[in-house]
Amino acid sequence: MKKVLIANRGEIAVRIIRTLKEMDVRSVAVYSTADRGSLHVTMADEAICIGPPKSSESYLDIDRILQAAEAAGADAIHPGYGFLSETPEFARRCEAAGIIFIGPGSEIMKRMGDKAEARKTMKEAGVPVIPGSKGVVDSFDAVREVAEEIGFPIVIKAVSGGGGKGMRFVEREETLEKQYKEAKKEAKNAFNDDRIYVEKYIPKARHIEVQVIGDGRGGAVHLFERDCSIQRKNQKLIEEAPAAVLSDASRKDITEKTAAAIGKLAYAGAGTVEYLYVEEEDAFYFIEMNTRIQVEHTISEMITGVDIIRLQVEVALFDTFSIRQEDIEINGFAVECRINAENPAKGFMPAPGEIERLHFGLGNGVRVDTHVFAGYHIPPNYDSMIAKIIAHAGDRAAAIKKMRHVLGETVISPIDTTLDFQHYLMNHPKYIDNAVDIKFLERNGIIE
Amino acid sequence: MKKVLIANRGEIAVRIIRTLKEMDVRSVAVYSTADRGSLHVTMADEAICIGPPKSSESYLDIDRILQAAEAAGADAIHPGYGFLSETPEFARRCEAAGIIFIGPGSEIMKRMGDKAEARKTMKEAGVPVIPGSKGVVDSFDAVREVAEEIGFPIVIKAVSGGGGKGMRFVEREETLEKQYKEAKKEAKNAFNDDRIYVEKYIPKARHIEVQVIGDGRGGAVHLFERDCSIQRKNQKLIEEAPAAVLSDASRKDITEKTAAAIGKLAYAGAGTVEYLYVEEEDAFYFIEMNTRIQVEHTISEMITGVDIIRLQVEVALFDTFSIRQEDIEINGFAVECRINAENPAKGFMPAPGEIERLHFGLGNGVRVDTHVFAGYHIPPNYDSMIAKIIAHAGDRAAAIKKMRHVLGETVISPIDTTLDFQHYLMNHPKYIDNAVDIKFLERNGIIE
Repeated sequence: MKKVLIANRGEIAVRIIRTLKEMDVRSVAVYSTADRGSLHVTMADEAICIGPPKSSESYLDIDRILQAAEAAGADAIHPGYGFLSETPEFARRCEAAGIIFIGPGSEIMKRMGDKAEARKTMKEAGVPVIPGSKGVVDSFDAVREVAEEIGFPIVIKAVSGGGGKGMRFVEREETLEKQYKEAKKEAKNAFNDDRIYVEKYIPKARHIEVQVIGDGRGGAVHLFERDCSIQRKNQKLIEEAPAAVLSDASRKDITEKTAAAIGKLAYAGAGTVEYLYVEEEDAFYFIEMNTRIQVEHTISEMITGVDIIRLQVEVALFDTFSIRQEDIEINGFAVECRINAENPAKGFMPAPGEIERLHFGLGNGVRVDTHVFAGYHIPPNYDSMIAKIIAHAGDRAAAIKKMRHVLGETVISPIDTTLDFQHYLMNHPKYIDNAVDIKFLERNGIIE
Repeated sequence: MKKVLIANRGEIAVRIIRTLKEMDVRSVAVYSTADRGSLHVTMADEAICIGPPKSSESYLDIDRILQAAEAAGADAIHPGYGFLSETPEFARRCEAAGIIFIGPGSEIMKRMGDKAEARKTMKEAGVPVIPGSKGVVDSFDAVREVAEEIGFPIVIKAVSGGGGKGMRFVEREETLEKQYKEAKKEAKNAFNDDRIYVEKYIPKARHIEVQVIGDGRGGAVHLFERDCSIQRKNQKLIEEAPAAVLSDASRKDITEKTAAAIGKLAYAGAGTVEYLYVEEEDAFYFIEMNTRIQVEHTISEMITGVDIIRLQVEVALFDTFSIRQEDIEINGFAVECRINAENPAKGFMPAPGEIERLHFGLGNGVRVDTHVFAGYHIPPNYDSMIAKIIAHAGDRAAAIKKMRHVLGETVISPIDTTLDFQHYLMNHPKYIDNAVDIKFLERNGIIE
């Protein structure tokens, strides 16, 4: 019997343990002292305490996790999301220790972790990227040439940039030279490096991502796409699958291109390729690839009936690949709300504490993934997400309606949560109309 | 906006209210004083108290329910299951009051409520029935003739029979005359009516039922079948869909025959045609038809993605029929456990009381339909079912495995429930092998 250690906590640890049980694979939980008595600890076949609440001394401590894996005799480690899931060094250390890392391997993680390298790799593999210069542009003439080629507006970015320093949005050619010089000067002052590059500026876009799974030998399938445009500070609050905005032709095009690219990389396991989607142009632009399971993998499971965690484990641990593209179909529509223990009225300030009363609206087409229960104390040390509520129905309108009523039935008290905020969004006419983009909440004055 | 009164309580009332909300139909709950503060009362748009806990003075009181419907201005009444759902008189009174009864109508309910009439009707409509005499057999020669035709073993039944009186199982011809005379004498003594009839005796069978929905105009579809063989005193404990025992050909044959029969009856709304299925003969024998929604409709919903309550409401209230047979496919496999507040160690004695701790194993492929919550007091007055837990997976083995873990995670305390009993069954090798029939629990010494 194989044994897998889950280097994570919370709902994703619970989620992974459930599938391991269904696969007759033994599960080993690790936990910090803040998570003693957590669901993932009681559910796993074995559990090992790996340190104090501070993540750097427990869930992020590679040595302690590897020690636990060796002590338990684990064949593999599932990193979940967050924590060490995108740390190539962790994957490398697992590999060196002879423990299977359930993920695509340190090399590809490293490549995808480097934005420029990821962009280059994915472009070569046939995926659309944001038009722009091929790396550094070293003269104004060259900048003008690129701008003419890709069209205004453009954005000039400092190679060493960050925090908006050395960055300029240029709307028309008349101001290009002036802004180019300003950008270089600002970059020089800020980073002592005045190298810049140029990209097309995308003022309004959706976040659409394609779920892929590769067999590690050049084969890959996609599980269609998700629209995760409702975000707050790059944190997704609501996710949908499939993306209702896409035509069948666009869906087919981007999902097939993405799966083909993943195949070319001989990618192993689950991954997500994220795009900006410009509705007016029906155009996708690659942002980044996540080489791990994502929070919102659930909605792709709901519309396809596929257990993505199972596929991850199959590819990594059993070197089998039980899925064929022609068997995967979209079945209805799924919406997910990430319920966070946060107070929306106070800038989404985390609201840890004890859950005294807990009741989920359940029933037909409802899935809840959570690690919390009545009497659970949410520790202040970690991510504030406490549950994912998923509504699955025939189409987007029906799924939203279902979600509205599910949220209405749900009780989580006395702590503050985003429940009412998401309930409000489910009633927002523009959200219902799917007139959204990644700045939807700010654009409509819903958040500052 | 249409308005529907739900003449029921518990999980089915909650279930119906949810779909009404999704359909933008207003819901009116009725409740006895024992159900004050119940979920169906708080969830409905309106709620009317109809009397004391005793069912005959509330949920079974036609006058009070019709008064409530008229007071609320309800367009229709959904009877759920149990209570008045199969009382033709209730449907007739609704019809007379100009209130739509969400069901097939009093006439067909009456016909199906009469066992002999139902058998005759369904036989004429092309559905297989248990071979036997055409009504009363009035001489020993006639009995012998029927016995020869249908083959031994047979069962002789008194027309006015009940409680086994006047009933004889006859294994071979040698004893036929003696047993025939005994049966007649016993019937005469017990009922002052010595008329008897003859049926083939079916010693071992499964309970397989076909879910149908008719448009009321001669059109009808089926949502495939369920295997509900795990029963205790005719009460189903575990249900499955589809019936894994059937070949594709047998499934196609019985489901198509059943849907065709329902069409011939111009049946309106949801119904279930129940059969005994003899595995060795691959033969179905009609038992009865239920002219209402059933507890286990949920598993058919899980494998087909169809909301059966919605279809009931559509047919009855909007005279629309949005479903076509060719669009209905089986997707995976679903198992349901009916969790009852009963003590299996004490002969399944009802165990009402307050639920203090409640936690369901949830997640991928899990559906829970329930009206209970932590702090809920189960009244002693009604059915002891407190939740339906449904596991949906790729095939029967995977669904059972999932159910096993879901039940293992679930906590309902301090009251007694059937949770552990069903958990035990999920681990029973014969159940896992699907070597079951309607006497499975007794045959294997699991219950007395």
